[in-house]
Amino acid sequence: MSRRYEDLPGPAVTAQVTSSSIMLLPIGATEQHGPHLPMSVDTVIAHETASAVVDACGERLDIWQLPTMSVSKSNEHCWAPGTLSYSPETMASALDDIGRSVASTNAERLVLLNGHGGNTTMLGTILRELRIRFGLKTFLMHPSLPPAYGGTSTSDELGMGIHGGLNETSVFMHLRPGQTRLELAERRVPEALADNAHVRFGGSVSFGWLSNDFNEDGYIGDPTAANAELGMKLFEHSVAELVDAMSEVKAFNFGH
Amino acid sequence: MSRRYEDLPGPAVTAQVTSSSIMLLPIGATEQHGPHLPMSVDTVIAHETASAVVDACGERLDIWQLPTMSVSKSNEHCWAPGTLSYSPETMASALDDIGRSVASTNAERLVLLNGHGGNTTMLGTILRELRIRFGLKTFLMHPSLPPAYGGTSTSDELGMGIHGGLNETSVFMHLRPGQTRLELAERRVPEALADNAHVRFGGSVSFGWLSNDFNEDGYIGDPTAANAELGMKLFEHSVAELVDAMSEVKAFNFGH
Amino acid sequence: MSRRYEDLPGPAVTAQVTSSSIMLLPIGATEQHGPHLPMSVDTVIAHETASAVVDACGERLDIWQLPTMSVSKSNEHCWAPGTLSYSPETMASALDDIGRSVASTNAERLVLLNGHGGNTTMLGTILRELRIRFGLKTFLMHPSLPPAYGGTSTSDELGMGIHGGLNETSVFMHLRPGQTRLELAERRVPEALADNAHVRFGGSVSFGWLSNDFNEDGYIGDPTAANAELGMKLFEHSVAELVDAMSEVKAFNFGH
Amino acid sequence: MSRRYEDLPGPAVTAQVTSSSIMLLPIGATEQHGPHLPMSVDTVIAHETASAVVDACGERLDIWQLPTMSVSKSNEHCWAPGTLSYSPETMASALDDIGRSVASTNAERLVLLNGHGGNTTMLGTILRELRIRFGLKTFLMHPSLPPAYGGTSTSDELGMGIHGGLNETSVFMHLRPGQTRLELAERRVPEALADNAHVRFGGSVSFGWLSNDFNEDGYIGDPTAANAELGMKLFEHSVAELVDAMSEVKAFNFGH
Amino acid sequence: MSRRYEDLPGPAVTAQVTSSSIMLLPIGATEQHGPHLPMSVDTVIAHETASAVVDACGERLDIWQLPTMSVSKSNEHCWAPGTLSYSPETMASALDDIGRSVASTNAERLVLLNGHGGNTTMLGTILRELRIRFGLKTFLMHPSLPPAYGGTSTSDELGMGIHGGLNETSVFMHLRPGQTRLELAERRVPEALADNAHVRFGGSVSFGWLSNDFNEDGYIGDPTAANAELGMKLFEHSVAELVDAMSEVKAFNFGH
Amino acid sequence: MSRRYEDLPGPAVTAQVTSSSIMLLPIGATEQHGPHLPMSVDTVIAHETASAVVDACGERLDIWQLPTMSVSKSNEHCWAPGTLSYSPETMASALDDIGRSVASTNAERLVLLNGHGGNTTMLGTILRELRIRFGLKTFLMHPSLPPAYGGTSTSDELGMGIHGGLNETSVFMHLRPGQTRLELAERRVPEALADNAHVRFGGSVSFGWLSNDFNEDGYIGDPTAANAELGMKLFEHSVAELVDAMSEVKAFNFGH
Repeated sequence: MSRRYEDLPGPAVTAQVTSSSIMLLPIGATEQHGPHLPMSVDTVIAHETASAVVDACGERLDIWQLPTMSVSKSNEHCWAPGTLSYSPETMASALDDIGRSVASTNAERLVLLNGHGGNTTMLGTILRELRIRFGLKTFLMHPSLPPAYGGTSTSDELGMGIHGGLNETSVFMHLRPGQTRLELAERRVPEALADNAHVRFGGSVSFGWLSNDFNEDGYIGDPTAANAELGMKLFEHSVAELVDAMSEVKAFNFGH
Repeated sequence: MSRRYEDLPGPAVTAQVTSSSIMLLPIGATEQHGPHLPMSVDTVIAHETASAVVDACGERLDIWQLPTMSVSKSNEHCWAPGTLSYSPETMASALDDIGRSVASTNAERLVLLNGHGGNTTMLGTILRELRIRFGLKTFLMHPSLPPAYGGTSTSDELGMGIHGGLNETSVFMHLRPGQTRLELAERRVPEALADNAHVRFGGSVSFGWLSNDFNEDGYIGDPTAANAELGMKLFEHSVAELVDAMSEVKAFNFGH
Repeated sequence: MSRRYEDLPGPAVTAQVTSSSIMLLPIGATEQHGPHLPMSVDTVIAHETASAVVDACGERLDIWQLPTMSVSKSNEHCWAPGTLSYSPETMASALDDIGRSVASTNAERLVLLNGHGGNTTMLGTILRELRIRFGLKTFLMHPSLPPAYGGTSTSDELGMGIHGGLNETSVFMHLRPGQTRLELAERRVPEALADNAHVRFGGSVSFGWLSNDFNEDGYIGDPTAANAELGMKLFEHSVAELVDAMSEVKAFNFGH
Repeated sequence: MSRRYEDLPGPAVTAQVTSSSIMLLPIGATEQHGPHLPMSVDTVIAHETASAVVDACGERLDIWQLPTMSVSKSNEHCWAPGTLSYSPETMASALDDIGRSVASTNAERLVLLNGHGGNTTMLGTILRELRIRFGLKTFLMHPSLPPAYGGTSTSDELGMGIHGGLNETSVFMHLRPGQTRLELAERRVPEALADNAHVRFGGSVSFGWLSNDFNEDGYIGDPTAANAELGMKLFEHSVAELVDAMSEVKAFNFGH
Repeated sequence: MSRRYEDLPGPAVTAQVTSSSIMLLPIGATEQHGPHLPMSVDTVIAHETASAVVDACGERLDIWQLPTMSVSKSNEHCWAPGTLSYSPETMASALDDIGRSVASTNAERLVLLNGHGGNTTMLGTILRELRIRFGLKTFLMHPSLPPAYGGTSTSDELGMGIHGGLNETSVFMHLRPGQTRLELAERRVPEALADNAHVRFGGSVSFGWLSNDFNEDGYIGDPTAANAELGMKLFEHSVAELVDAMSEVKAFNFGH
Repeated sequence: MSRRYEDLPGPAVTAQVTSSSIMLLPIGATEQHGPHLPMSVDTVIAHETASAVVDACGERLDIWQLPTMSVSKSNEHCWAPGTLSYSPETMASALDDIGRSVASTNAERLVLLNGHGGNTTMLGTILRELRIRFGLKTFLMHPSLPPAYGGTSTSDELGMGIHGGLNETSVFMHLRPGQTRLELAERRVPEALADNAHVRFGGSVSFGWLSNDFNEDGYIGDPTAANAELGMKLFEHSVAELVDAMSEVKAFNFGH
């Protein structure tokens, strides 16, 4: 049976989506990722990760996969002609509307699976808003947690493979063979930041940045050694972790 | 070469998207369409129509296909649990943001290819706003013009195959064989309206309606005789007409 | 008895305005109409048409005429110093407020009688919003349907007497003798558009335009042969049609 | 020559409206005024006062009379079915739009002539906003300053002829003979307030109130002795004062 | 016992704040006041006045002092680098939120004690909005009523000691000895305004102004003779008047 | 010399605040913290921490301390009568206004020192918005990073001393002796969460929660062993870390 939500006829929603169902919204982006990657990277990764998670446990955990958002808040890349970006206000309104719509079903749990690091803090805020306004239990997952928000990056990149770096490029090479132009990529690691104890990606002091603040090419990390094998390994690990996390989501109650 | 906009790397946008390019945004919906059709109908039709148009003339006319919007303004179906809908304000903001993003490229023409009749008047308004704010030449096309806005519907449906009726169901059967449950469909034509000279779909007096105003099943028309052959014929005719229209868009200038 | 709504004392509203009453809101504009017509044209036509309709059938059909809006959304003329225009957001809010106010009475039907084509699509959207938010039955009429939205224009103008053309000028000459300076008018028909099968006023593809996109004088059509006799004929025909339409509004029910 | 702004053809605005012109916007309301007065009172008084001022000095002082706003912020009367009211946000947006439109002409001075006390503080705020955003010199006048904002009322009403009281009723009787039903009016003075030294209309402490906070009939004052002669006297005095004030507006410069 | 609201533990609010309590919100500003005064003046005066009033009668009248707002709407000073200002929209939203929060307690009365004249009309509007939305009885007081809104100023300043003038400077010298640099102050009275009968501060015609419209130094009045003794006298008088007013607030009922 | 920004006279801002200055905005809250702590906790900690940091290095690093915000986004506590909370929209607007105001000075660096965990993700989003809109270099620090966002909590609390727990209570006891009622506190640790590998505070999956989701008392952690000595140690450590961080802020450049 299809686990794509949009494949349900309207009147079937009431019976098929129950209080134990999990609604899963993949969130991508259409934004510059340097010369070596297409603008679709975040959407592809969010969509494929969600699909793999649903393939693995959708039936068992009663997950419904919502249509992937392919445009989101990408204003750190708006200096680059062509990036499609919602404003913060539009993005918040869109998710508010999605939350209201989801709350019109019997489902009680909504998971945001976010492929674009630029959305992370805003989605963190929205989790609470949707809980307050619609009573939903809300969750935020990432294919891989962005280094700027507590995730890890390779030591070779000094932990700063933020955008278009080794891991992301490798995963994309695995998912969409032949769409990466690695020969155009170079090392773009903001070395100076590594000396900071506090003000650095994932440090105790966060800071506002645009993707061209560090270099004019707009990618951050070192994708030169990216390869599909590494990408496959990372992707499979990520999916396995998310399947585990989905079980916790399924069982989650505040215990009150 | 891919004509999907998101397949471009960011830095390629400047060279590949030029002042003679046409940007094409397919707009779908995820909303109830009665018991016989999945909620994806409008998205599928908008997306497949856009893809067919681009296949037919994308290279010749230099068209770039933007990612399909799969949620839009569907509040006439919000009585039905499960419909995903943006508010009018969210929808307007999202398109404003898309317009701003498109205007950051060299393109001067943006075509909205709208698969959901509930968006039609709002998109009509937005055409002008995007022209004013961003200087774009803006256009609105439909896979088939909704009867409520000047299009035609079958005489058997008294011209009121508005939502989930004969034509739409047939086109969907052609595009996604095996996903329609025709055995659940019945005739749902608001016969009384046919007597009106003014206040009717496509009449001189338009009126506000929700999809459950006419009957509680929420579809309007008579899909019982729908079939894939008719769908194929309608789809191919629609694509041919839109390809013609695209040539006019390509050549369009205000002559001033 | 006066049928002007504002002539009612507040406490009389409850008894005088009933569930079978029709509330009628004339919507005009204050915007440039070329050198031959004053900026008041749309307001005058909307107001006089509404008054004539109410004179003809207000008592019989229990219509209450609301105060005429004399400023509306005219941003296609904002290039012209002096045009008074509400933004789309203001216009939508104002009508939302009017809808809420009307819904505080016993009336169930609200008719918008719109004299300015630039409002047409937005009002079409608002019909549904007011129905959703306040439960009103809502209707949109025009003194004459704009050619850009399905109405007709003269063949001599190639169907493009959009703004300040033959018909509108004639009607104004009938309603306000001595205020038109026909000697300043010339033919301003965008001939090139007539060759288009799709992208033209009232065609299957609508497009965004400002009134100075076609020519720098900002009127579209050919008013040079305008005359009050034609205006009288058009006005009387329009009023007769609207009186007919009002009977349909009176009887309108969704039949559900 | 007509001094009604809307009677100008669009292209004439540039020549006719100059840096020494004064733009005059009459602001009325459509709201309950008790059983003895129609809902039009504030609109009638604002409109007739503006017209009389323009008749008296419009040509001399180069005043252009804008179309009267007949709906404004009347939410203190929203408990009464039938009152037409803009929200504070709509009202602010509408005046912002009018300000922008006026600033597109050569005029530098905009006078708001406000007939509805419920607008007074908001318009006071807007004066500054329009000055900041559009550089206009902005002014706020009243046919008679509301007692709640520093104006006077009769001692018989203890200074509290706020809404539908002696003066307002008399002026309306003068302007629209035969539309007042004085036999339905009674004394409605909130006597208890008179004991307060601070918390009273026009006192050092202002307070939030709705028109039905004091009595359920929604008018405040004592109109029982109203008469057209008094009304004429008040009206003529008011017009004379405003004509004087207009001369000061004409000459007004910050001297910097 | 502390009468500072924020010193209450959360669960104590229900018992300690009752329907007879008065909530008092001091509102200051951080804005330029000329070269002789720090930007803190309005905040200091609002805060110290509120504290003195609460010291005098807080226990007796059951007043709870809310945290002082130190930034408010100061956009008439935005030409001066450094002024901190909320936009009108932010200020209105902030007070709406405060009103909602206060209405979540048992209190029924909210007093705004406003130290910044630039807020006066906006707060006047908000009194009503908070009453409508939350049912609160709302009041607006000033340490001293601004001359532009009905208060008095010294005759030596021709009644125009609006901002940084004799009285305000003196009060500040009393409250914060040693922080005033009187040697930098000069007479800055817009003499020309004094000739106007209508268009002047506190006159029948109000007008929009920025603080640098009159002179480029941005203060209005004559602080050269300011002194702490006068300040003490004014401050003590003001506190005494406000204590009186608070008793009226305590007893205030609409009598309906 | 005072390093409080508001103590500067307006005209001094231009000279005193330079491109190497750091603007420091302490952000507190007024919200329930359980029965043992007053609602002022977050404001007190943010304010005192900021003051201590400025005392330690304000002169050396040229820091200007802005007025402490004492109300912020506390809607996770809005179930508790008395909590003062800005909506997300108000909070974002207020910080946008502060950013614009700061950008009107010569300063290029703005540090938000946030004492309320409920603001953390929103402020993370705002860092970027202020950088985009005003070109500021923006930073976010915490007296102690919330466990929900990567900080640590005691193992005895299973890492969940989120709100009113051991550390926060201890710090407050140090800063405001005699205002804590420890006898009313109990252990309130949501033990069940500790079993989760992903969905837990600071885990890879974040989730939306209100402070009464876990227990009806609204605090989370175990404050029973809180003491002022621990508080002093924590406070001094925090200040020392922040002083270090401030040096990095001072030197921070994107290196591009």
